[in-house]
Amino acid sequence: MLDQVEATETASPEDEKDQSYLLDQKTVAAILYAVEIDDREQLVELMEPLHAADIADLLEQISSFERMRLVRLYDREFDGEILSELDESIREEVIAVLTPQVLSEAVRELDSDDVVDLIEDLEEDQQETILKALEESDRAAVQQALSWPEYSAGRLMQREVVAAPEHWNVGQAIDYLRATPEDDLPAQFYHLVMVDPRFHPVGNITLGKLMRSKRATPLKDLLEDTFRIIPASQDEGDVAYAFNQYHLISAPVVDDEGRLIGVITIDDAMAVLDEEHEEDILRLAGVDGESTLSDSVRATTRRRLPWLAVNLGTAIAASIVISLFEDAIAQVVALAVLMPIVASMGGNAGTQSLTVAVRAIATKDLTGSNVWRVIRRECLVGLINGAVFAVVMGIVGIIWFGSPALGYVIAVAMVVNMVVAGLAGTGIPIILERIGVDPALASGAFVTTVTDVVGFFAFLGLAAAVLL
Amino acid sequence: MLDQVEATETASPEDEKDQSYLLDQKTVAAILYAVEIDDREQLVELMEPLHAADIADLLEQISSFERMRLVRLYDREFDGEILSELDESIREEVIAVLTPQVLSEAVRELDSDDVVDLIEDLEEDQQETILKALEESDRAAVQQALSWPEYSAGRLMQREVVAAPEHWNVGQAIDYLRATPEDDLPAQFYHLVMVDPRFHPVGNITLGKLMRSKRATPLKDLLEDTFRIIPASQDEGDVAYAFNQYHLISAPVVDDEGRLIGVITIDDAMAVLDEEHEEDILRLAGVDGESTLSDSVRATTRRRLPWLAVNLGTAIAASIVISLFEDAIAQVVALAVLMPIVASMGGNAGTQSLTVAVRAIATKDLTGSNVWRVIRRECLVGLINGAVFAVVMGIVGIIWFGSPALGYVIAVAMVVNMVVAGLAGTGIPIILERIGVDPALASGAFVTTVTDVVGFFAFLGLAAAVLL
Repeated sequence: MLDQVEATETASPEDEKDQSYLLDQKTVAAILYAVEIDDREQLVELMEPLHAADIADLLEQISSFERMRLVRLYDREFDGEILSELDESIREEVIAVLTPQVLSEAVRELDSDDVVDLIEDLEEDQQETILKALEESDRAAVQQALSWPEYSAGRLMQREVVAAPEHWNVGQAIDYLRATPEDDLPAQFYHLVMVDPRFHPVGNITLGKLMRSKRATPLKDLLEDTFRIIPASQDEGDVAYAFNQYHLISAPVVDDEGRLIGVITIDDAMAVLDEEHEEDILRLAGVDGESTLSDSVRATTRRRLPWLAVNLGTAIAASIVISLFEDAIAQVVALAVLMPIVASMGGNAGTQSLTVAVRAIATKDLTGSNVWRVIRRECLVGLINGAVFAVVMGIVGIIWFGSPALGYVIAVAMVVNMVVAGLAGTGIPIILERIGVDPALASGAFVTTVTDVVGFFAFLGLAAAVLL
Repeated sequence: MLDQVEATETASPEDEKDQSYLLDQKTVAAILYAVEIDDREQLVELMEPLHAADIADLLEQISSFERMRLVRLYDREFDGEILSELDESIREEVIAVLTPQVLSEAVRELDSDDVVDLIEDLEEDQQETILKALEESDRAAVQQALSWPEYSAGRLMQREVVAAPEHWNVGQAIDYLRATPEDDLPAQFYHLVMVDPRFHPVGNITLGKLMRSKRATPLKDLLEDTFRIIPASQDEGDVAYAFNQYHLISAPVVDDEGRLIGVITIDDAMAVLDEEHEEDILRLAGVDGESTLSDSVRATTRRRLPWLAVNLGTAIAASIVISLFEDAIAQVVALAVLMPIVASMGGNAGTQSLTVAVRAIATKDLTGSNVWRVIRRECLVGLINGAVFAVVMGIVGIIWFGSPALGYVIAVAMVVNMVVAGLAGTGIPIILERIGVDPALASGAFVTTVTDVVGFFAFLGLAAAVLL
């Protein structure tokens, strides 16, 4: 906190923004210098004001060699939160460098949900090491959380819950909170969860309301309007959606029998929302959703190659279409010059429709009620934009190559391909979603194949019919 | 809340998920039927269990005509939260349909920050209508918020803050909370903000800690470790980043003199994070960042056309490169067949690098410390993947066209274009960011132009030199 107060006093708000969010190059350089001259005291002093999340960013940004030296020198100052914040690939590397003693102290500081988050992506031997470092009760909690499926609410929740029976009043709840030892309460909590005698959650009460009410008030009178129960098996993406859609701050998690077993808070839901978006955005571009900037050249190559291989396949398919019209191209070389334009415009229009559809599916806005209206809209937009660019390209074709027929051919092909782009860009993700494939992952390849093949076919086929 | 309890009792957790998150088609159909037969009672009963966010989704998914009839029939049940949740384009339409009386009651229920959120995108005459509907004090609050720049923390914050002087103890804080009338407190709050005598925030105290501490404990002893001050002029994207990076739940907002003027809570920050992602993902695909599924055909056409026009320009540039080699193509038509493959692979590899770079810039992970390492990595990855596909395409070229020279030409062109793709895909967004242009918006066009031009030039140029 100290660093903040200093920042407020010495800097204008604008400077402060840069200071507090971006690790500035000066600090990084100073830290790396301290590492190079092996000055532990200086290193610790420089790192002290940094938040664990910033230290993690720093470790991700420097080279592997610098990272190893820094972690060794920092030694017992290294805390668990830094581990939590690190990218998976870097995390494994850092854990391998930490001494067993530092590692076990680091993980012991963490809440059980953070340990779960940290441990689930690790190699098995590293998982073992960390589980062994935990105290008995924490280990059991972590193992139980790991028994829920990956990416489920059960993995995301914290197990410490503040629950109150339905018949309590405000005074009883406050006395209970005061009497409970700190370790049995969540590190941060914002609601009491009211439960029925079977331990099924029935409502939420904010601490603010509890604090402002008379001791004799029944808890029942203080329930919040918005209350959502999360099944432990629910996908974390749906959890994040619920938090965002219903403005939840925390929500109780229940097991298959509907009993309260934990709580998810909005900060964890926000992190999931961020990850899901990241995954979508990367997948749409044909990059593995787990990619990070700190992946090695080898990992990056491996993550990108499959998609490029798929793309090679679709590009060859398009080439085969072109080869069907070799004769036409040999006679009118202008066709070879103009054909990429039709394909490219279709590809772009298709990507536009596709991205809108993929997002709408992710936010559950594209449903049975409006799917036909949306498809109709996309085709109409393709028709109108296609017509606009058909006119433009028709004129370009006539001026450039002096052939009205060529202008006419490219214009018609353009309209056809852009309507198809709207149809494919919307229809393909919808179909993929229905058959259980992530539309963000696979739609791009299909849509581009369609627009390439249709684009070349329409343009060259029409040209062959009209011009030859 | 009732619907929840019912759902838990009648459905397994899996069913419940669908029930609570997706407006199922049956409900939608029943609601539309009630509207059609003008059965107000039935409509109100069907809508009662729905959250305002779900009602907003419903309104977005039905046709414009159904929407108008539904809103008119629903009449005075229509509340302000639904307005808050609606997409901008639909919101204007709905406001035009509401009677002045319903509208003014709806907006009076809202917190001032929600009114700001609702009003800022509206046309001026609708803004006026809503401002007039507010009570005097609320109107002043909204107008003051609107004096901060668009997309700033000042617009995002709520003005009701719970502040406590540094010298207070727990008992004084609790008494103050109890004595303050409900209207002067935020609807939900999770922290006390401790302020110095100049009203500068110096720390946060969670309500949980406050409630569990003895009355005589000085507030100073209860401060949270993580505490960030947000300047009111800060961009909302940076606010969302700070919440996500530092796991903040709420943060005090200060004016240019550093005085506490409001608070931002994580649910608002999460909504901003979601919007910013949406904008990035759409912009990367060449779609206006504000696009929604409920835009009209006309609005959609207009939003997509500019990007397609840019793409037409770059496609024509690529065609001009091709036209330089018309003679070569006329002699070896296979060149026309194979050339799109080189361009397409480069385009895809470039998009991969580009997307990773744009994301890394948005998450502040791509900095001065690692920029060269990342560029080097991307070029190396391009080299390796290029080499792999060069071998594949070399073989394809030889088998397909029986020409080793052609295989050799396409292989070399492939390597060249994929290295260039890595360089352009990383370098272009970095340069755009430095000169203050959103890399998500403009990078795509530049990168594709580079990979098309280089791809065609390398392949056709090499072919002309080697084969003719």
